[in-house]
Amino acid sequence: MTKPTVLATCRLLPNEMKDLEERFNTIVLWRQADPEETIQAYKEEIQAIATNHVFPLRRELMEALPNLEIISTNSVGTNHIDLEAAKVRDIKVTNTPDVLSECTADTALCLMLSVMRRICEGDLYVRVGKWFHGDMPLGRRPRGKLCGIVGLGRIGKEIARRCEAFGMEIAYHGRTKQDVAYRYYPDLTRMAGDCDVMILSCPGGPETVNLVDSHILEALGPEGFLINVSRGTVVDEPALIAALQGGVIAGAGLDVFLNEPDVPQEFISMDNVVLLPHIGSATFETRTEMGQLVIDNIAAHFEGKPLLTEVKI
Amino acid sequence: MTKPTVLATCRLLPNEMKDLEERFNTIVLWRQADPEETIQAYKEEIQAIATNHVFPLRRELMEALPNLEIISTNSVGTNHIDLEAAKVRDIKVTNTPDVLSECTADTALCLMLSVMRRICEGDLYVRVGKWFHGDMPLGRRPRGKLCGIVGLGRIGKEIARRCEAFGMEIAYHGRTKQDVAYRYYPDLTRMAGDCDVMILSCPGGPETVNLVDSHILEALGPEGFLINVSRGTVVDEPALIAALQGGVIAGAGLDVFLNEPDVPQEFISMDNVVLLPHIGSATFETRTEMGQLVIDNIAAHFEGKPLLTEVKI
Repeated sequence: MTKPTVLATCRLLPNEMKDLEERFNTIVLWRQADPEETIQAYKEEIQAIATNHVFPLRRELMEALPNLEIISTNSVGTNHIDLEAAKVRDIKVTNTPDVLSECTADTALCLMLSVMRRICEGDLYVRVGKWFHGDMPLGRRPRGKLCGIVGLGRIGKEIARRCEAFGMEIAYHGRTKQDVAYRYYPDLTRMAGDCDVMILSCPGGPETVNLVDSHILEALGPEGFLINVSRGTVVDEPALIAALQGGVIAGAGLDVFLNEPDVPQEFISMDNVVLLPHIGSATFETRTEMGQLVIDNIAAHFEGKPLLTEVKI
Repeated sequence: MTKPTVLATCRLLPNEMKDLEERFNTIVLWRQADPEETIQAYKEEIQAIATNHVFPLRRELMEALPNLEIISTNSVGTNHIDLEAAKVRDIKVTNTPDVLSECTADTALCLMLSVMRRICEGDLYVRVGKWFHGDMPLGRRPRGKLCGIVGLGRIGKEIARRCEAFGMEIAYHGRTKQDVAYRYYPDLTRMAGDCDVMILSCPGGPETVNLVDSHILEALGPEGFLINVSRGTVVDEPALIAALQGGVIAGAGLDVFLNEPDVPQEFISMDNVVLLPHIGSATFETRTEMGQLVIDNIAAHFEGKPLLTEVKI
């Protein structure tokens, strides 16, 4: 039996890359000198695409590949895929939910704790010898504070569970009230006004563009902290810069930005922010599991088995 | 009624300092040009000392103050106080337990998460523009890993509770087995061999000097992380430096050092460590509560009420 042909647009970890190449006739796009030409050369053969959120899967590409049956993305988000175009052609789409929820929640906690307790500042404080001249300014304690989670999905719930262990109260905002013990705010401005820390873990996409604007930041207030592990589009970035510069809010922890990896210079010169290079799920363990899921979905498809994590279009 | 006279050797936060000076005849030692002379001048009057862990309270000082009745230290640890000398003179000693347990546990989690997920490294990665050249190396995930806590006291239990929320298994080592659901290791080397992360939250003092030596670090192994929020004396510091340099362990997060604030240059040039300037309880909220407890203990003593948090000698 001939192996199905898979176009790999993204790098998996070495073990999973090896597995992919063993199980399929794999065209590794990022190893090619001229990717466009490679796609042209193999357009009749490509039956599957293994990809991730940095590679846009547009209608034009799908139309150019007449035998494409499945797109398996190494991400939860699917904003980079034209789902309508996939539906028209009956191309299956799979993603990697669940497996990265805990890691991304951990990243949110890392950011919250780091900005409230001044961890990165503290590490530099020691390294540049400032400690000889006295103690660092005091941090802020999570215990007893209200954490407002925007988007109480899988990741949001993992964030909530961790924040509870730190003695925080939990509130959330989202489209619908859920059957949970946390306080629901249908109005985001009201939640921002009440909470001490606001954590963004909602999906990206057109529905949440600039959800956090200058009004929300004003409501969050001068003692409030903003944490974003969602997408850069969810925050009005110039408004956030102005709010941090003007003391409208106390600080921010950001794993995502509007034009990654181009982080605005204004953030870089601030010491009341912690900036991370989109490490949401970036652990060896989770990336291994995600890569395996990308492969397993493709394999299931060609073996005629049910897909493990299909995106409903 | 004349106010009792209190010698304040340490700074409290402004509000608590104001409160102390209003309620007592307060001699603020750190404002004096010649502290020795000040103590001599007021030696007959001083009835109480408000202090902290950086000011050693030796037998000679107690002998020089014939009317000293109580020492109220703004710390949990009492290694800086000659408790035997206090006992001989029937000088009461109070500390600030409980109130700082959660903050110190938070600091342990900050260190563990920062070193495993490369948070301080990530912040610098963004700030110096490295992100333009590719992604950062992957971190490690706490979930599913075994956390071995050395010293399951108040702080250790708070650490355990937080680690559980991150999906970690918990083990502990200490003098005695406790009535808890966590696995007890009477032998520290065995626990080090089994666990992925070892967190030190035991008391300092002579009993725990160099408890973590080269053998323990070897047992912890090349995938293991060491976190210390206890005291610098608990770790054989040169052995730890060698272990980090030689890849004997994976990394370390340190809030305490042998000769604070003099952190060995070897640590400062390492990127598999996170270094903090002893911020254990350093939040505005907790320092406020601690300062208030220092004052309340002194007040209780002179009002003939039971002390709130007396150190049993």
